[in-house]
Amino acid sequence: MRLKRYLEEKRGLIDKAFTEFLPSQEEYPPSIHRALHYSLEGGKRIRPILTLAACEAVGGKVKEALPAACGIELIHAFSLVHDDLPCMDNDDFRRGQPSVHKKFGEAVALLAGDALLTIGFGLLLKKGTPAKKVQVAQELSRAIGTRGMIGGQVAELELNGKELDLPKLEYIHTHKTGALIAASLKVGGILGGGRPKEVEELFKFGEYIGFTFQIVDDIIDGEGYCLLFDRKGAEREAERLTLKAKTHLKRFGTRGEILANLADLILHRTQ
Amino acid sequence: MRLKRYLEEKRGLIDKAFTEFLPSQEEYPPSIHRALHYSLEGGKRIRPILTLAACEAVGGKVKEALPAACGIELIHAFSLVHDDLPCMDNDDFRRGQPSVHKKFGEAVALLAGDALLTIGFGLLLKKGTPAKKVQVAQELSRAIGTRGMIGGQVAELELNGKELDLPKLEYIHTHKTGALIAASLKVGGILGGGRPKEVEELFKFGEYIGFTFQIVDDIIDGEGYCLLFDRKGAEREAERLTLKAKTHLKRFGTRGEILANLADLILHRTQ
Repeated sequence: MRLKRYLEEKRGLIDKAFTEFLPSQEEYPPSIHRALHYSLEGGKRIRPILTLAACEAVGGKVKEALPAACGIELIHAFSLVHDDLPCMDNDDFRRGQPSVHKKFGEAVALLAGDALLTIGFGLLLKKGTPAKKVQVAQELSRAIGTRGMIGGQVAELELNGKELDLPKLEYIHTHKTGALIAASLKVGGILGGGRPKEVEELFKFGEYIGFTFQIVDDIIDGEGYCLLFDRKGAEREAERLTLKAKTHLKRFGTRGEILANLADLILHRTQ
Repeated sequence: MRLKRYLEEKRGLIDKAFTEFLPSQEEYPPSIHRALHYSLEGGKRIRPILTLAACEAVGGKVKEALPAACGIELIHAFSLVHDDLPCMDNDDFRRGQPSVHKKFGEAVALLAGDALLTIGFGLLLKKGTPAKKVQVAQELSRAIGTRGMIGGQVAELELNGKELDLPKLEYIHTHKTGALIAASLKVGGILGGGRPKEVEELFKFGEYIGFTFQIVDDIIDGEGYCLLFDRKGAEREAERLTLKAKTHLKRFGTRGEILANLADLILHRTQ
């Protein structure tokens, strides 16, 4: 299976790069470095793989986008570590293992999240021309900030007890999850040397699959979209968005096939 | 008094710039934006003023460094908001007002800290050539990360119950407080168009006054240095470091006077 091999190869590259880009677990003070490495264990690496695939779709070399792809995974990990904290979702487990604050305590988990975000930003500035580095870092600042991921998280907090409606749910999904996924694609396009129109198409593709990603989460958990529509309705919406996403891959021809496969993977995932 | 006027003028510039650079308090979702603005109220703006003064010391124009100076103040505010959280210092008050988590709840405070860091990084990328923007953002990623501020915070956490000794205390002070202050100076030098040697001297000046800043904190609170030495000994050390700091201002002549005055202000502050 071509996609399976692609995923394994890219995951290998990404995980190897982490050992290069992160301080070792022995470095002083050790607890924070152990927590950083721990927080990255077991992830599917969907976002950085999307970055690398977008880089290749525009004809770029994977190594140009690899540090930024790792930075994006660190930023994703930051969001999970903080999301799991008692004052947020209070989750004791993540990926079948104790969450970071259960393993290292709340204070170290808080600081580990802060460090993941900080080091992640640094990794966005490692490759490419200075102008591209700036573009990539600005893109992420937007995608994470209060008009992106954090805005979505706060909107979800504010929902607490209030009635769910479609505009609110769309806001939460497109911001909380969609913004970072769309940015992952855009960054790969920029660092791969894509033309502005190509980068824009990758971004739109990313917006649709990011939205799909969160609807599929709802289907798996029986929440959100499954409550507003029924399960079948949610599935139909996810399929419709995936088709929409793929229309933005046309200009990439066969180079866009991996991205189309990744869109299907996101649509059909069961965990 | 020349310094007093300088401080008032720069504070005015910085506070005015915040209203330009931050989303308004009415923007959706409002709780996070209200928390962002609230977290910035009442600060002395020491770090961004140091950035602006460093910019002027190398002959640069204040407006070149203003967005980055604001970014540094946001990053400082991020560290305070997270430091005050119950899992860290559990402080109910900051600057005589309820701390952010007491006013907005823990979840919003956590996310407000994350947003301050994220938006802060974005502001580092607003002015200057792309190469300078990259240098500034890399500098901050280093200064905040596990080899900078966060490393110092974790080292302090790990101290919990263990005996305090001078090497540990120096590590904590130079990392937790010194790294961001030294970076504030360096950033001003870079964006002001300083030559590498000038930027280096500003950084060293910053390291010494950053260390002094934390010793004076200890003197005010009767902690750290006041426990290892007596109060008089701590005061002598702070004076010695301030003199050392000023040796790095020689090359700036009269242009360095404001920085020398700021060093004295840090040495003699009583709150």
